[in-house]
Amino acid sequence: MATEKKLLPKKTDSLSDWYTTLIQLADLAEYGPSKGSMIIKPYGYAIWELAQKALDDRFKQHGVQNGYFPLLIPMSFLEKEKSHVEGFAPELAVVTHGGGEKLEESLVIRPTSETIIYDSFSRWVQSWRDLPILFNQWCNVLRWEKRTMPFLRTSEFLWQEGHTAHATHQEAIELQKWAMDTYKAVYEDYYALYGYVGYKSLSERFAGADTTLTIEHLMPSGKALQSSTSHDLGQNFAKVFNVSFQDKDGGESFVWQTSWGLSTRSIGGLILAHGDDNGLRLPPRLAPVQIVIVPVLIAEDLNQYAHQLAKDLQANGLRVTVDDRDDERFGFKLNKWEVKGVPLRVEIGKREVENNQLTVVRRWDGRKETLGRDQFVQEVADRLDTIQKEMLEASKQFVQAHTKKVSKYDEFKSAMRASEKGFVEVFWEDNPEAEAKIKEATKATSRCRIGDEEGVDFYTGKTVRGRWIFGQSY
Amino acid sequence: MATEKKLLPKKTDSLSDWYTTLIQLADLAEYGPSKGSMIIKPYGYAIWELAQKALDDRFKQHGVQNGYFPLLIPMSFLEKEKSHVEGFAPELAVVTHGGGEKLEESLVIRPTSETIIYDSFSRWVQSWRDLPILFNQWCNVLRWEKRTMPFLRTSEFLWQEGHTAHATHQEAIELQKWAMDTYKAVYEDYYALYGYVGYKSLSERFAGADTTLTIEHLMPSGKALQSSTSHDLGQNFAKVFNVSFQDKDGGESFVWQTSWGLSTRSIGGLILAHGDDNGLRLPPRLAPVQIVIVPVLIAEDLNQYAHQLAKDLQANGLRVTVDDRDDERFGFKLNKWEVKGVPLRVEIGKREVENNQLTVVRRWDGRKETLGRDQFVQEVADRLDTIQKEMLEASKQFVQAHTKKVSKYDEFKSAMRASEKGFVEVFWEDNPEAEAKIKEATKATSRCRIGDEEGVDFYTGKTVRGRWIFGQSY
Repeated sequence: MATEKKLLPKKTDSLSDWYTTLIQLADLAEYGPSKGSMIIKPYGYAIWELAQKALDDRFKQHGVQNGYFPLLIPMSFLEKEKSHVEGFAPELAVVTHGGGEKLEESLVIRPTSETIIYDSFSRWVQSWRDLPILFNQWCNVLRWEKRTMPFLRTSEFLWQEGHTAHATHQEAIELQKWAMDTYKAVYEDYYALYGYVGYKSLSERFAGADTTLTIEHLMPSGKALQSSTSHDLGQNFAKVFNVSFQDKDGGESFVWQTSWGLSTRSIGGLILAHGDDNGLRLPPRLAPVQIVIVPVLIAEDLNQYAHQLAKDLQANGLRVTVDDRDDERFGFKLNKWEVKGVPLRVEIGKREVENNQLTVVRRWDGRKETLGRDQFVQEVADRLDTIQKEMLEASKQFVQAHTKKVSKYDEFKSAMRASEKGFVEVFWEDNPEAEAKIKEATKATSRCRIGDEEGVDFYTGKTVRGRWIFGQSY
Repeated sequence: MATEKKLLPKKTDSLSDWYTTLIQLADLAEYGPSKGSMIIKPYGYAIWELAQKALDDRFKQHGVQNGYFPLLIPMSFLEKEKSHVEGFAPELAVVTHGGGEKLEESLVIRPTSETIIYDSFSRWVQSWRDLPILFNQWCNVLRWEKRTMPFLRTSEFLWQEGHTAHATHQEAIELQKWAMDTYKAVYEDYYALYGYVGYKSLSERFAGADTTLTIEHLMPSGKALQSSTSHDLGQNFAKVFNVSFQDKDGGESFVWQTSWGLSTRSIGGLILAHGDDNGLRLPPRLAPVQIVIVPVLIAEDLNQYAHQLAKDLQANGLRVTVDDRDDERFGFKLNKWEVKGVPLRVEIGKREVENNQLTVVRRWDGRKETLGRDQFVQEVADRLDTIQKEMLEASKQFVQAHTKKVSKYDEFKSAMRASEKGFVEVFWEDNPEAEAKIKEATKATSRCRIGDEEGVDFYTGKTVRGRWIFGQSY
């Protein structure tokens, strides 16, 4: 692979070829040996670590506690919740042998952990004093996939799964919303991705949930990426796993539950949405390297100057690399860091050192700026903040420019045939049968309900409540 | 389980009963539904997160980069390195079905990841410019175990596995030592555990390694815990996975490799070594809660005082909890935090508030001290440092007091029959046949070679080089 590096195709020529080539060139990931598996290389994993930290800090702030449940789930656990097992059965990997012997009961590798976690909750929860439980785990899960694409759809992926139990439905609903608010904030402030948040339709909700909140991002292909979801599980799992508690009046009630997750799929959205013909463009807050300093030639004084500058920037909490390798040409280095999407580049030559002035180049929009060395550290921190905001603003404009309000099914169909696809906003009444027919005709499905206003259903012509986003999806 | 909480037996009466009961009472973990699996509860996982951070910071400081390789390894990969597959074959969990179909090639859940990682290294490494590779991953692994014990021996466990590739053998050996130095430092400075570091015998080394460095801790049972290992893999894997590079002179060479790991097993050692008849005793640096503040009664002014104190301590970077629950009695609370091993306890009543003086109780040795409120924050931070050091010192003294120098096999045998077992220090020449016979007769095996001095072999009577620690092990 390293021996046969391809050139990066134009993003607009072939998005999927561009995507897979870029992932290779930027050293983000490669395919693993078993079907649909992926190796996350250090540069890709460093992005994930930054996202993890942003989320984990917010979880802990809210009182969520991390723990860890086993990878292997007895098949009988999954079978307890009917719609849950129907949803996941086709995607399971099954362990039949352990320690050289055939197992009495087959174990499945977790596709998600509701069943094994709620079996424990039934012991953890006895009284109202034990509630709420706010639990989270960072782990790997596995869902056998037919068509795979690095990050976006892999059999095994990494994620966090939050699981909570509450005394009242109201409290559970608030937690479900808090989780989605947290995802939305992290997607905006870290991933620089703007998306629609709303409720899933009956056909698209999570297997076993009463309602599913989702955040949907628009990719350059015009397709939607379901980035993260948060579920109100009602008492569905509580009843089958007998998670009940004695309330203050001595009565026995089932708990109300939520679950919610964000995965390495989010890195796929990040790459697709922000990259350009020259490579990645990383938002500063998720960039493993925020500033790269490249001396124009390898000379003692330039290197010293570069490393002092790096130290000053690092002391200010910035992530900086000096590229002073003596086995790569200058032009090769510039290209390498461009492909890797480092937000700011500083080139250091004799002139810069003499004039005590530095030129920074922004990866995001290519803008160059000359800054004095004395105020450099603070100015650069400001520039990174500005880039972060501009990238989010651009994402918002892209989504809004590609959301078409449509009132009739004919318009809807031509929007889905258009070369510039995107989101379609309609009034609609949730109806699985209608949704199946729309999907068959247009490949589009509802993405989420973003409002409850009254309007004319684009499919039936009736007056209904419910404003929806539709789109084709990954 | 929560409904049938047992009393904690005396540690000296039945260590294993004490251990499993304590794990339940302190809310550290519980058994999972499948054989040998464990659920790590939030209080137990928080200890692991603190250990992870200590290690991860040191790894990154040294230039080690994190990434992630797939959970499932094709059986054919494991079979490439003969001694490796022989070592792990009896412990494998095998996935035979995926997505509803029988797989063409069975996949195993990683028992360790040398094979799948080095298959990638063969592509990552082309030239001397690509070296060294310093890679690490935090993940779950699975080894089917017959006898299991929470943390100490579970089928699935969490760990980090470091994997490196180098241009020279010397550099690999230095890295192997650096990894073990790092483990030793973290065990001493965080776990407050003193242990012996040295090389494993031919029989005890890692399957596929040239040499294995180990750190061995002594448990109160008199048995050794092999806590972490670091391997010089030589070119064994490089040759079978063809990890080679073009050196500066244009010649082609195989890389030299190391691997090293530390797992959740370490938490088992922590519990066993430090706990007492009243519960856990956590070293401050790994304590999720370092100080618990308990108002003696629930009253507005006491709570306010307690929370202000907590804020001041937290502002100084300390981990503090105020237990102001109104649904538990004061005595119950004291017992709860004692069992959980919180290093310092502060009780707040009217008198404390009026006198502006606070009494802290040390969990480690029960010592009480009255400190003025004004210097309290700094004084408490000092106390935590002191406790951390005293716990390590106690561990060191325990190990030294239970290491018996022995020169003859008869003495060796009676030491292993003694009610106060422990480590035995001997001169010995590494010999797998002799080791097997010693094990059969005494249940003891070599733990590690701690020196190369000359002496009389306790088994053969010959003059040999090599000072060794022997002991029975978990």
